[in-house]
Amino acid sequence: MSMSGVIVRRLAVIGVGLIGGSLARALRRAGVVGEIVGVDLDRDNLVRAHEFGVVDCGAETLAAGVAGADLVFLSVPVCAIPAVVRDLIPHLAPGAIVTDGGSVKGEVVAACEPLMPPGTHFVGGHPIAGTEHSGVEASFATLYEGKRCIVTPTPRTDVTALGTVVRLWEAAGSEVVLMDAEKHDRLVAAISHLPHMVAYALVNAVEGYDRFEEGILRYSAGGFRDFTRIASSDPAMWRDIALMNREGVIEMMDHFAAYFATLRSLVAAGDADGLERFFRESKESRDAIL
Amino acid sequence: MSMSGVIVRRLAVIGVGLIGGSLARALRRAGVVGEIVGVDLDRDNLVRAHEFGVVDCGAETLAAGVAGADLVFLSVPVCAIPAVVRDLIPHLAPGAIVTDGGSVKGEVVAACEPLMPPGTHFVGGHPIAGTEHSGVEASFATLYEGKRCIVTPTPRTDVTALGTVVRLWEAAGSEVVLMDAEKHDRLVAAISHLPHMVAYALVNAVEGYDRFEEGILRYSAGGFRDFTRIASSDPAMWRDIALMNREGVIEMMDHFAAYFATLRSLVAAGDADGLERFFRESKESRDAIL
Ligand SMILES: NC(=O)c1ccc[n+]([C@@H]2O[C@H](COP(=O)([O-])OP(=O)(O)OC[C@H]3O[C@@H](n4cnc5c(N)ncnc54)[C@H](OP(=O)(O)O)[C@@H]3O)[C@@H](O)[C@H]2O)c1
Ligand SMILES: NC(=O)c1ccc[n+]([C@@H]2O[C@H](COP(=O)([O-])OP(=O)(O)OC[C@H]3O[C@@H](n4cnc5c(N)ncnc54)[C@H](OP(=O)(O)O)[C@@H]3O)[C@@H](O)[C@H]2O)c1
Repeated sequence: MSMSGVIVRRLAVIGVGLIGGSLARALRRAGVVGEIVGVDLDRDNLVRAHEFGVVDCGAETLAAGVAGADLVFLSVPVCAIPAVVRDLIPHLAPGAIVTDGGSVKGEVVAACEPLMPPGTHFVGGHPIAGTEHSGVEASFATLYEGKRCIVTPTPRTDVTALGTVVRLWEAAGSEVVLMDAEKHDRLVAAISHLPHMVAYALVNAVEGYDRFEEGILRYSAGGFRDFTRIASSDPAMWRDIALMNREGVIEMMDHFAAYFATLRSLVAAGDADGLERFFRESKESRDAIL
Repeated sequence: MSMSGVIVRRLAVIGVGLIGGSLARALRRAGVVGEIVGVDLDRDNLVRAHEFGVVDCGAETLAAGVAGADLVFLSVPVCAIPAVVRDLIPHLAPGAIVTDGGSVKGEVVAACEPLMPPGTHFVGGHPIAGTEHSGVEASFATLYEGKRCIVTPTPRTDVTALGTVVRLWEAAGSEVVLMDAEKHDRLVAAISHLPHMVAYALVNAVEGYDRFEEGILRYSAGGFRDFTRIASSDPAMWRDIALMNREGVIEMMDHFAAYFATLRSLVAAGDADGLERFFRESKESRDAIL
């Protein structure tokens, strides 16, 4: 491999699951990393990551994993990120950059940035990409291709470190958008967290409908299956997201509930024009993002 | 074509759109119909249906279309079905069977069955299959393959007519389930009508979220797009469904709203265990229908 395009000489991936594994695969394919070291609480997952060639080696400890790394990527559950940063700090190389892929940014950036010793840097990030599957076996090199990645600098962020993180996501195929962490959390509450809350509640509501003896979900057709695919997502991950973006999630849930109540009153009133208008506006918005 | 497998000698399809066009294509491919005559309010659609070979001829009037037909399939908007049945009755051949594919059954069956002259028969039906597209150009022969079709006989339904309708859907590749019309309407309210109401409200809520200057839907990833695909469905069709299955739709909307409110209080309380349990139950139900 030519070293000319290398952005990161030694990359440490903490949590080599869907998100970390996919970034490792994408960066290796792009030829922009030297060596990739993996760390994972789940030893079997780490062994598989090594077997699949996603990482060059698996480190036994966080200390060994981050030693000598110029960039550390955190793709552990979002609630765990601040604690992991606290634990790895004593072992960081001078000038090291720590960045993450956690789905919530406000609390993460606020907790991590102040911890960083002088000359080391924290930059928050979140790829708007994913699937409902977990673990390194679900990872693939093209996950980030053509997707947006939101990076959330603060006024204190080092510009060189920011530039490295941006180039990394671009090398993985993403379009990087810079945004403050607060705004990020409102945005994802709307386009990602709310839809997940709605899908989880919908499946439970339909399953809990007790007018029928038999399970009624077996009657569902393709529309229902596609619509509820995101309700297959990892419950622990979504618990963390709901806990860490509580304010944003509640705001969007209330916002949605108001629209849903409006629609309910149109149905109850048998308001043909109002119903058609409501559905048409929705269709137009939806078709515009096709 | 051998006539040995023919179930219907002359089939009239009233409304040759997605549903009627797909049934015509499927039955022709299966070799179970002699001649197919189409009738459609939309003349351009009817011309295309003829050009595509979906129908053998297009009739100018309902009278000409149903004349001599042993089976008439109604795939017009569900609100229009009772009026069309009233209009076509004077022209029906003796022994003719009229059946439909409308998404709501209670009101349709209650309105149509009593209209039928002695020796002619109405049988309600509803294929649990569809897409978010409309018109004959969206129709295809395999739409019903491997899908369920609910047929809703009443105590007054003629068994021979019922048998013909069942064999027709089976020839199109569907598994037929018999159910009373009331139960059908509750079932589809849960698995189809509620998800559509939720999807339409979700897209409008996200689009109507005004914290951002720019349109935020452009940040949405694959999950949001899949989740909201059904919000691209025909607004007029969904207006009709909401009007005709009002009671069932309202009941399910209220049922969903209660689950959504429960989830909201788990988020507001920061109840980690409760949230994980809620998400896990949903994931388990969803994964069971994969
Ligand atoms: N999935 C998505 O669609 C998506 C999209 C964008 C962002 N994200 C974010 O990406 C992050 C990772 O999600 P993922 O879907 O990749 O999860 P994943 O596939 O489950 O991978 C996470 C891995 O990290 C390990 N881990 C947990 N705690 C750790 C710790 N303290 N130190 C080292 N390893 C640890 C996990 O092991 P155990 O299984 O033993 O805990 C697991 O192997 C989360 O912050 C999530 O919010 C996810
Ligand atoms: N789409 C689905 O996913 C789905 C699934 C299951 C059941 N259904 C049911 O199937 C039926 C048809 O839906 P579709 O999706 O096939 O609609 P579609 O593609 O729009 O086709 C309906 C056709 O019927 C024509 N039409 C309307 N009123 C008529 C009348 N009085 N006489 C003759 N033709 C008339 C329409 O013309 P104009 O466009 O000029 O009105 C249109 O060409 C509805 O009852 C619906 O509830 C739909």
